[in-house]
Amino acid sequence: MTGVNIYDIDLGQTPANFTPLSPLSFIRRTAAVYPSHTSVIHGQRRFTWRETYARCLRLAQALRKVGVGKGDTVAVMASNTPEMYECAFGPAMLGAVVNTMNVRLDADIIAFALNHGEARVLITDTEFSPTIKDALTKIGRDILVIDIVDPEYSGPGETVGKMTYEAFLETGDETLEWELPTDEWDAISLNYTSGTTGDPKGVVYHHRGAYLNAISNIIGWNMTHHPVYLWTLPMFHCNGWCFPWTVAALAGTNVCLRRVNAANVFDAIDRHKVSHFCGAPIVLNFVINATDAERRPFSHQVNVMTAAAPPPASTLARMQQQGFNVTHVYGLTETYGPAVMCAWKDEWNSEPIEKQAYLKARQGVNYHVLEGLCIMDPETMMPVPADGETMGEVMFKGNIVMKGYLKNNKTTTESLAGGWFHSGDLGVLQPDGYIQLKDRSKDIIISGGENISSIEVESVLYKHPAVMAAAVVAKPDDKWGETPCAFIEAKDGSNVTAEDIIKFCRDNLASFKCPRHVVFCELPKTSTGKIQKFKLRELAREAN
Amino acid sequence: MTGVNIYDIDLGQTPANFTPLSPLSFIRRTAAVYPSHTSVIHGQRRFTWRETYARCLRLAQALRKVGVGKGDTVAVMASNTPEMYECAFGPAMLGAVVNTMNVRLDADIIAFALNHGEARVLITDTEFSPTIKDALTKIGRDILVIDIVDPEYSGPGETVGKMTYEAFLETGDETLEWELPTDEWDAISLNYTSGTTGDPKGVVYHHRGAYLNAISNIIGWNMTHHPVYLWTLPMFHCNGWCFPWTVAALAGTNVCLRRVNAANVFDAIDRHKVSHFCGAPIVLNFVINATDAERRPFSHQVNVMTAAAPPPASTLARMQQQGFNVTHVYGLTETYGPAVMCAWKDEWNSEPIEKQAYLKARQGVNYHVLEGLCIMDPETMMPVPADGETMGEVMFKGNIVMKGYLKNNKTTTESLAGGWFHSGDLGVLQPDGYIQLKDRSKDIIISGGENISSIEVESVLYKHPAVMAAAVVAKPDDKWGETPCAFIEAKDGSNVTAEDIIKFCRDNLASFKCPRHVVFCELPKTSTGKIQKFKLRELAREAN
Repeated sequence: MTGVNIYDIDLGQTPANFTPLSPLSFIRRTAAVYPSHTSVIHGQRRFTWRETYARCLRLAQALRKVGVGKGDTVAVMASNTPEMYECAFGPAMLGAVVNTMNVRLDADIIAFALNHGEARVLITDTEFSPTIKDALTKIGRDILVIDIVDPEYSGPGETVGKMTYEAFLETGDETLEWELPTDEWDAISLNYTSGTTGDPKGVVYHHRGAYLNAISNIIGWNMTHHPVYLWTLPMFHCNGWCFPWTVAALAGTNVCLRRVNAANVFDAIDRHKVSHFCGAPIVLNFVINATDAERRPFSHQVNVMTAAAPPPASTLARMQQQGFNVTHVYGLTETYGPAVMCAWKDEWNSEPIEKQAYLKARQGVNYHVLEGLCIMDPETMMPVPADGETMGEVMFKGNIVMKGYLKNNKTTTESLAGGWFHSGDLGVLQPDGYIQLKDRSKDIIISGGENISSIEVESVLYKHPAVMAAAVVAKPDDKWGETPCAFIEAKDGSNVTAEDIIKFCRDNLASFKCPRHVVFCELPKTSTGKIQKFKLRELAREAN
Repeated sequence: MTGVNIYDIDLGQTPANFTPLSPLSFIRRTAAVYPSHTSVIHGQRRFTWRETYARCLRLAQALRKVGVGKGDTVAVMASNTPEMYECAFGPAMLGAVVNTMNVRLDADIIAFALNHGEARVLITDTEFSPTIKDALTKIGRDILVIDIVDPEYSGPGETVGKMTYEAFLETGDETLEWELPTDEWDAISLNYTSGTTGDPKGVVYHHRGAYLNAISNIIGWNMTHHPVYLWTLPMFHCNGWCFPWTVAALAGTNVCLRRVNAANVFDAIDRHKVSHFCGAPIVLNFVINATDAERRPFSHQVNVMTAAAPPPASTLARMQQQGFNVTHVYGLTETYGPAVMCAWKDEWNSEPIEKQAYLKARQGVNYHVLEGLCIMDPETMMPVPADGETMGEVMFKGNIVMKGYLKNNKTTTESLAGGWFHSGDLGVLQPDGYIQLKDRSKDIIISGGENISSIEVESVLYKHPAVMAAAVVAKPDDKWGETPCAFIEAKDGSNVTAEDIIKFCRDNLASFKCPRHVVFCELPKTSTGKIQKFKLRELAREAN
């Protein structure tokens, strides 16, 4: 009863009882425990965990020899190949920071990112040499360029750098002594947001968050040892939602995939007994719309995690009917990828499949390692009532919120103001505590003073049997301010008309929410399957 | 190229992107996401997660009202009851530290712990009132005592405190506002080692380690959502190996058990579809030696985690034959319970069952969240070769090594010297990187200059069909220094003789390792099923 906290005396951190959290621990452990287990498959190429770990060590050592060290950026422009996978580990072993580039971006943005991130080295796949050659002329400085020459790739492209990745590895040494970061808050990766307007922002992740979200993927998704993980999701997207580290932790097998299409997905499921894959709803659309020739039967459980846009309930229902176990997650680049999941409840299994799909299309609840998830009025920072109707901004708090934006203190401070990350997404809180997205702030259509959720309209459009993909944006209107304009990718062979679509909407929506204009076209999409609404908004201005 | 680490600028911790790790996050999330799911079953008593969380909040608030706060100790003397489970959370919500007592200890040691830990409150089950009454007379100060009066308990005992636990909860308020610890290094629990010699040592755990080991149980054991966890393991043992927090994270159901015996275990498996339980090999012995009347058939997977003593291969083989999926783990109070596991490899499935049992009886590899596991020469701190023969001391490093021993800086410093926790256990490193325990240092028998592992001799004894339990200790010997002395608990109805046993050992062991003396008796055990070898050593001195 001394008034002193006895637990604060002589019980401090020592090297024996404190280790910084880092996903590097996972690959070290797996290489030691399961050295012969297959780590990576890419066409004819196969590696074991012993080999992948050794290649990561060589990569780290080679980078060190060219002067890369703590806090230096290593940029990577690559598909889902073994090399790309190794880049999730090698640079971090030196305390360097990996910056994976979105391969669909143009040379200007790539050049911007290379300079803003101060990349010391660029590792680039020959497939992307046209863009990279162009970008390199724009950066106005020398940079060491290493070429990935993938024997599984036979398309156009050329080497543009000093040496090949394999030759670079040869300069390294797999006996490298490396250490975990001294501080788990140290940066591990840099991810530029695609940025529909303005310069891209560089989102910085740290070792602690990468470790925790890699684990949260396991717990949230009920993953067990030795998953066979198919890379339908680009690894450049939020570091593959932290799955490179998740698969390492579980001693799983990474099945690489350069081209995501229905035939390749079914082939991998059949050939490698894929147990898990992730992707935007566009990947789900590939799967459910596969032709008989593309399909392969499978009898094992295939788990699919989807995010990036709220999946239409009809898509979820069809995936389930076809034997896929779909988990719906939600997150942003700023939250290490998935940070919210529609945690499934056993009692929902007895609901009709349409109702199940509706329930599953909601974004849901916080990941285990996300401490707080809230819908708030961004002005007052007060939570909205759990009424399913009152809109507010989705806010996140916890260890899987980014360190911040690189060299952009103003935006970092604004986005983390008030103890919460302000996502810019709008949603409601349902009475059962599950959040449901309504829109990006800028995607709300305000017509005659009424807010229209473009997502709500799109979810109706997706129910139409002829609709392959749909997006709704605001079209400026003299009378109403804005009206909804629908862009539709129809299924092959359909002859649906604009009138059919509008009639369908009127049968299923309040009339003020119905599109006044319908345009049939191929929807512009980002490489991650996100529909580029800013482009559609331009088109909508001109639509009649 | 400025030489500055750009990732260190303006990217610090904020309330939005940093949260201390604490297992309290798990119960908060589960109560919010799965409020109606059954949290705890104890005979006729049943609770949901909403209710258990509310009871923890009431407990915390009630404790606060009597002056308990950060760094204060709350002692608990209880069986595996709902109240005991709630004590894994309630005190921690205040920053207080729970000290669960081993209920088999005597009044002197309980009194010692109450005073050494400076407990402000003692929560005690009426079953243990004789010991507690005695202990309270010895501590020489007032302490608030709260009685657990369990309606499921009908044995002897009386209330000894100021009020009942239920009345105490009534003084609390479930709308308590609580916060995570400000520092994840803050203490969450205090566990006294049973201490065969000298005063017990108070092992202190922190929130970070509790969080991480709770998660590591999930990943290592392939646990998925909603396990049904049977409490065969005492919760007072290393905080139930962190499983109270694991079950909360997974929104599982805790099935309490006051008396561990074969009938109760099979009854729970049948009635509640138990999916997981843990225990010392003694629990496995209950199961494999159950009578037909005690057994219940089951068709679902029952996963069993065992530790505390290296399980005899024959026990493992019989468990497997009876349909239990056994995982062997190893750890100490100082490592939050399990920290090492015999990670199973698929290729071992094709081995004969005896070989499988041998492989599984090894302690194995580090838990995912344990950074380092090593067998070293404690003098030189050099790792032993991976030859399966060279003995060294098992050393641990990482976030699930304790904060230290309470008010015992000398022993803390010694045990964490050189960047590793020195376990005092002796073992070898096998060529495949799996460690195998050979003995506690003090359990090694040195006979004629040769080291004899008592575990090796015991594992032979367990293969004898008449042996229920066996332990081997050193008996002082004028000629040899020491010789092995075997204590054997024979199976009911067997009429095995000492000569039979010695003959059996000679057929299976080098002769210098064979026991010279065999004593048939009931083996003295701790409450956790550990055989008390120090008592046997005393008996061995007198054996003829």
